[in-house]
Amino acid sequence: MIQKYFARRITDGTICDGEVSLALEEPLQIMIQGRAYTTIMRLPGDEIALAAGFCFTEGIIDSVDDLAGIQFCKDSSNRIFVSLTPERTSKVQSYLERRSFISQSSCGICGKELLNEICTKLEKIPPSCPIALERLFSYADILKAQQKLFSLTGCVHAAALFDEQGLAAFAEDVGRHNALDKAIGKALFEHQKIQVAVLSSRASFEMVQKVCRAKIPILACVSAPTYLGVELAKAAELTMIGFLRKPNATIYTQPERVLIPASVNS
Amino acid sequence: MIQKYFARRITDGTICDGEVSLALEEPLQIMIQGRAYTTIMRLPGDEIALAAGFCFTEGIIDSVDDLAGIQFCKDSSNRIFVSLTPERTSKVQSYLERRSFISQSSCGICGKELLNEICTKLEKIPPSCPIALERLFSYADILKAQQKLFSLTGCVHAAALFDEQGLAAFAEDVGRHNALDKAIGKALFEHQKIQVAVLSSRASFEMVQKVCRAKIPILACVSAPTYLGVELAKAAELTMIGFLRKPNATIYTQPERVLIPASVNS
Repeated sequence: MIQKYFARRITDGTICDGEVSLALEEPLQIMIQGRAYTTIMRLPGDEIALAAGFCFTEGIIDSVDDLAGIQFCKDSSNRIFVSLTPERTSKVQSYLERRSFISQSSCGICGKELLNEICTKLEKIPPSCPIALERLFSYADILKAQQKLFSLTGCVHAAALFDEQGLAAFAEDVGRHNALDKAIGKALFEHQKIQVAVLSSRASFEMVQKVCRAKIPILACVSAPTYLGVELAKAAELTMIGFLRKPNATIYTQPERVLIPASVNS
Repeated sequence: MIQKYFARRITDGTICDGEVSLALEEPLQIMIQGRAYTTIMRLPGDEIALAAGFCFTEGIIDSVDDLAGIQFCKDSSNRIFVSLTPERTSKVQSYLERRSFISQSSCGICGKELLNEICTKLEKIPPSCPIALERLFSYADILKAQQKLFSLTGCVHAAALFDEQGLAAFAEDVGRHNALDKAIGKALFEHQKIQVAVLSSRASFEMVQKVCRAKIPILACVSAPTYLGVELAKAAELTMIGFLRKPNATIYTQPERVLIPASVNS
């Protein structure tokens, strides 16, 4: 469930390149009665429990007695097949028919295939002017100072986008994806050329995808990225920074966009 | 974007009932070209930016020039209507047709209507034996000790379920919904009668819904709940505890299920 990754760590002012641990993140397509019900991004492992728990909390089963079987074949694809008893099937059939949607991918999906598919469409981020690490720390301070709802409720994530002049767009939301979409939406209307995105949250695959789509060269987050997030950043030539917490930071990809003072290098 | 709420706070060993601030959480149905595209749970506010940013990061628009208009009418329902230019429409039509699904609700949806709809189907949690606050603190310690992947990666959430004997099920995942589904799935297979769910994360509406569905009487989370989450807990007569961080905790609903030592009351 973990992937070792070689990253640049800045700890208490000194650079220390070395291995870090990243959580795996892979899609899982849940097939119910042979039809695609949903695809979720998840940590590999406990797939049978995940599918059973998901079907239960979604109301598709009332107990494990409603299950005729769950099949997960790790090697072939990230798909899990749930079959229901005939009695349960007749009970939930109409709901399932309404809810099922056409899978966006006709083949099996796994992390690698998903990434390959996305990478073929991916526009690489062009080289851009480097930015001082100290400036990134100051951006994290600005993000924190702007998080007024978080300081009141403790229940919202934030995204801040910076251009050459400084803070260009900021948003908070109960969902980290929404916070980033809101900030990107604001910058779109203003036709701003964003240099850095700073997130209060983790950077999973979907968050990196949004930043790549907005062609923002540097993504810095206060928390950790997933392995799939880092892989996507690498493929897109995006600079990905995690654990941005002055005086520390971890740079996973394209470190040439981050200027670190000479004293720190020694 | 904030709702004041009267809660029981235990701070440094003393009970102090009073107002706390909760972040609002409401559904937003994004309609594209008149069809339901998706419904997201979000913090109210910045709806135009959210819809524009969402359409951009999903690849539905390439710039704001692809938008013919975005209409949001706050009063009628939590729906936002995105219309595309004729040129853009012809480009993304086939994708939209594949992706759009039948809305689960034919009427407009707002937080209140959603809650009303769910509450009519909701089975209330029956009264259950109270549990000592000290035991809940020890459960939080057990959760933390079990978070081995988190300590390595900083990138996963955890859910722990407890029955009379102690820890009954535990799971970690990059998604907090998955962590809870995995733990509930494990408990389902073992036919365990769960008393307490402890989450490393926040408790949004969907997390509370899952706990209600599993008929677990006490939900305690290390972080904050949303207002909609608390409202659902109240309707289901679930005991909801937030900020469970020894020696502090905030009890939002059904505090009679939590025993607090007499000395703390004085």
